[in-house]
Amino acid sequence: MFYRENPCGNGYAVVAGLAQVIEYIENLQFLDDDLAYLRSTGVFREEFLTYLKNFKFIGTVNAVPEGTVVFPGEPLVQVIAPLAEAQIIETAILNIINHQSLIATKAARVCWAARGDKVLEFGLRRAQGPDAGLYGARAAMIGGCYGTSNVLAGRLFDIPVYGTHAHSWIMSFDSELEAFRYYAELYPTACVLLVDTYDTLKSGIPNAIKVFKQRREAGEVLENFGIRLDSGDLAYLSKRARAMLDDAGFPDARISASNDLDEHIISELKLQGAEISHWGVGTRLITSKENPAFGGVYKLAALRSADGEWQGKIKLSEDPIKVTNPGVKKLLRIYDKASQKIKADFITLADEEYTADNDLTIFDPIATWKKMHLPAGEYEIRELLQPVFKNGECVYPTLTVAEICKYAAQERNTLWDEHKRLVRPQLMPVDLSQKLYDFKQQMIEQMR
Amino acid sequence: MFYRENPCGNGYAVVAGLAQVIEYIENLQFLDDDLAYLRSTGVFREEFLTYLKNFKFIGTVNAVPEGTVVFPGEPLVQVIAPLAEAQIIETAILNIINHQSLIATKAARVCWAARGDKVLEFGLRRAQGPDAGLYGARAAMIGGCYGTSNVLAGRLFDIPVYGTHAHSWIMSFDSELEAFRYYAELYPTACVLLVDTYDTLKSGIPNAIKVFKQRREAGEVLENFGIRLDSGDLAYLSKRARAMLDDAGFPDARISASNDLDEHIISELKLQGAEISHWGVGTRLITSKENPAFGGVYKLAALRSADGEWQGKIKLSEDPIKVTNPGVKKLLRIYDKASQKIKADFITLADEEYTADNDLTIFDPIATWKKMHLPAGEYEIRELLQPVFKNGECVYPTLTVAEICKYAAQERNTLWDEHKRLVRPQLMPVDLSQKLYDFKQQMIEQMR
Repeated sequence: MFYRENPCGNGYAVVAGLAQVIEYIENLQFLDDDLAYLRSTGVFREEFLTYLKNFKFIGTVNAVPEGTVVFPGEPLVQVIAPLAEAQIIETAILNIINHQSLIATKAARVCWAARGDKVLEFGLRRAQGPDAGLYGARAAMIGGCYGTSNVLAGRLFDIPVYGTHAHSWIMSFDSELEAFRYYAELYPTACVLLVDTYDTLKSGIPNAIKVFKQRREAGEVLENFGIRLDSGDLAYLSKRARAMLDDAGFPDARISASNDLDEHIISELKLQGAEISHWGVGTRLITSKENPAFGGVYKLAALRSADGEWQGKIKLSEDPIKVTNPGVKKLLRIYDKASQKIKADFITLADEEYTADNDLTIFDPIATWKKMHLPAGEYEIRELLQPVFKNGECVYPTLTVAEICKYAAQERNTLWDEHKRLVRPQLMPVDLSQKLYDFKQQMIEQMR
Repeated sequence: MFYRENPCGNGYAVVAGLAQVIEYIENLQFLDDDLAYLRSTGVFREEFLTYLKNFKFIGTVNAVPEGTVVFPGEPLVQVIAPLAEAQIIETAILNIINHQSLIATKAARVCWAARGDKVLEFGLRRAQGPDAGLYGARAAMIGGCYGTSNVLAGRLFDIPVYGTHAHSWIMSFDSELEAFRYYAELYPTACVLLVDTYDTLKSGIPNAIKVFKQRREAGEVLENFGIRLDSGDLAYLSKRARAMLDDAGFPDARISASNDLDEHIISELKLQGAEISHWGVGTRLITSKENPAFGGVYKLAALRSADGEWQGKIKLSEDPIKVTNPGVKKLLRIYDKASQKIKADFITLADEEYTADNDLTIFDPIATWKKMHLPAGEYEIRELLQPVFKNGECVYPTLTVAEICKYAAQERNTLWDEHKRLVRPQLMPVDLSQKLYDFKQQMIEQMR
């Protein structure tokens, strides 16, 4: 499995979803009900249904760990299995990895735009179904979010949940002030008041300040408190809100914002000096609105014949970058030793060995005159595909989402800022080894 | 619950998802594990957790039936329940109805563009998670699709499943011809051959024709057979393919097409005389790529005080069309008696009675000078909100997806073609009764 283009014009993608792929493969079986349905379609032979009845995945899977930054054309999941098995798990792998990698990548963009501010995933009500909300929240965390409003995601993946109240909370009381007071009493440790139900500057913020004052006068130590802006001009209103809260003696009161946010709007608001420290991002994150599909594909790259020999397979296309890379492959990442940033990725055949002890020259597989020289001692090599299943047995560790998030943050640190730019970022070279390049050219010649 | 804007610039939306909302509400309960998790967050009081432990929905829900064509600003789901209950089910209602209505609406656009050709939902691998694929397939059927490649959806919702083979099927054989032959042997009743693995015109179609001829010579009656185009220029290739198949004596061979299709591309291809009768639509349908979120919202419209009196509630906004309609309401649809097409929708307070026996004049709630006069005898009225739950009991019939699809097709027939145009369609008037209009104005005055 690989993908051809970064979503949203990004310079990289964050791969995610592997834990759910593992769960799927481990639990995959065909029950009597399933078989009865398949039989009822009249399409399948009885021997195939018997095969399904006894189905257990016995193949081998290698994959790039969740949270890794990856680039177009790279093998993200490699399945080495009897053909039927490899086909049966195809759609689940694509569905799961495509979805979670999409949202993790989008989240990474949003978090980059927020420049260290906290980004909360607030999108469940606009997600494309319950799973999209649940696994989207998980993926958003891997992409760098700080928490989610999805309580089930909080519980299942042990990730922080946050939220504020709705407008209806305010509307269900006779006055905004009364609604704020009661909320502050109920949730003293998470008191974020939504101030735009009637009039942000004339009613919402003054009422919030009244409530904060009352609670301070009552001797309470205020923590994790503040306001949320959900409409109007967020740059202007947040600056006014900051001044009003500071003047009232609440420099610690947080200003959070929501309302159809995405990386572009957050970036512009930051440029205009918006005084917002917490960003609640909903629809445009959970659907990756600008680009709601991650175009991952799953292609046959090699077939082992009865004599045990691998035979490369290739899918041709008019478009050179759509021609697949044949053979069983390996994905190497080359780091600059001094900065520990990625210099290039390098796809080789599985039986090739590279160590950083030798000088290496790599070249662009389309514009072959674009070469990069890597002197020994100045670079490091890491192999990205990790064993996940070996002959049907899962050999991959169970990781918490917190562990994946920590690793994912380190991964994003291996990119220069130039690769993270939201618009027209610098693209990472993904080169082929000479041997793979030659093999591919030879296969293309053969096929034509 | 209502929405503010039709997705993809459409002239209407197709509402869907009610069956899953019903299932959710009927099964909603908080188990000990759930409560333990909520307790562990430290945010909730023990009395609230006890409330949740005993939670059972006792409210009333009215909703517009699935498959109905609807317009912005109309109540689609009306929840009359204790405030806490109405809040607890909010997110699920929004998530489910937003998702399925989005995909049903998108599918209606695609099917309209295909002008009676069969449209198959092929998007699972690019859907935003497993649910998005499953319920997306369901919604796509309600929007007018003919079948899906999602086998689980086929089983759970009893909807037709279709599919062809992948490129990897071809690549796993020594030759394309051999691959086609074996496939035709395995699936004689659903033999659609994918012809673009190597070269559509020089290899794929000639090989497909060879296989069809062999089978005909073997005395087989060919049915449901044909080819699928998945790359290249579909207008040109389909016309060439049609000629080649006709010349070979296979005028019944179907030509189906896939490859990043949507309503706009299909429309253009039809204009250019593409000889395609089956359209496999994936990514752009299952994600509604052009517009991947249906902006449904859920707002408090009235509150019943201790004395049993309903008190209207309103949410103001700078933008006139974002000001909510207060009060418990009713949604009436006005049909032209002669054509049985919709003339307008009409939102009234719940206690108003209208019959078609009287002349009626309705007016646009923003541009109030835009009036429509409806003489008695020339129009009919239908109430759209149907009882779904009464005091916690579900009173809504269980419908099959096939039944919903049939109703949905009739519903689309109540629109003039002008409302179905893909670009800049004529918009349907959604007016307020005089009483509701006055009530709203009065509340706005009060709030300012």
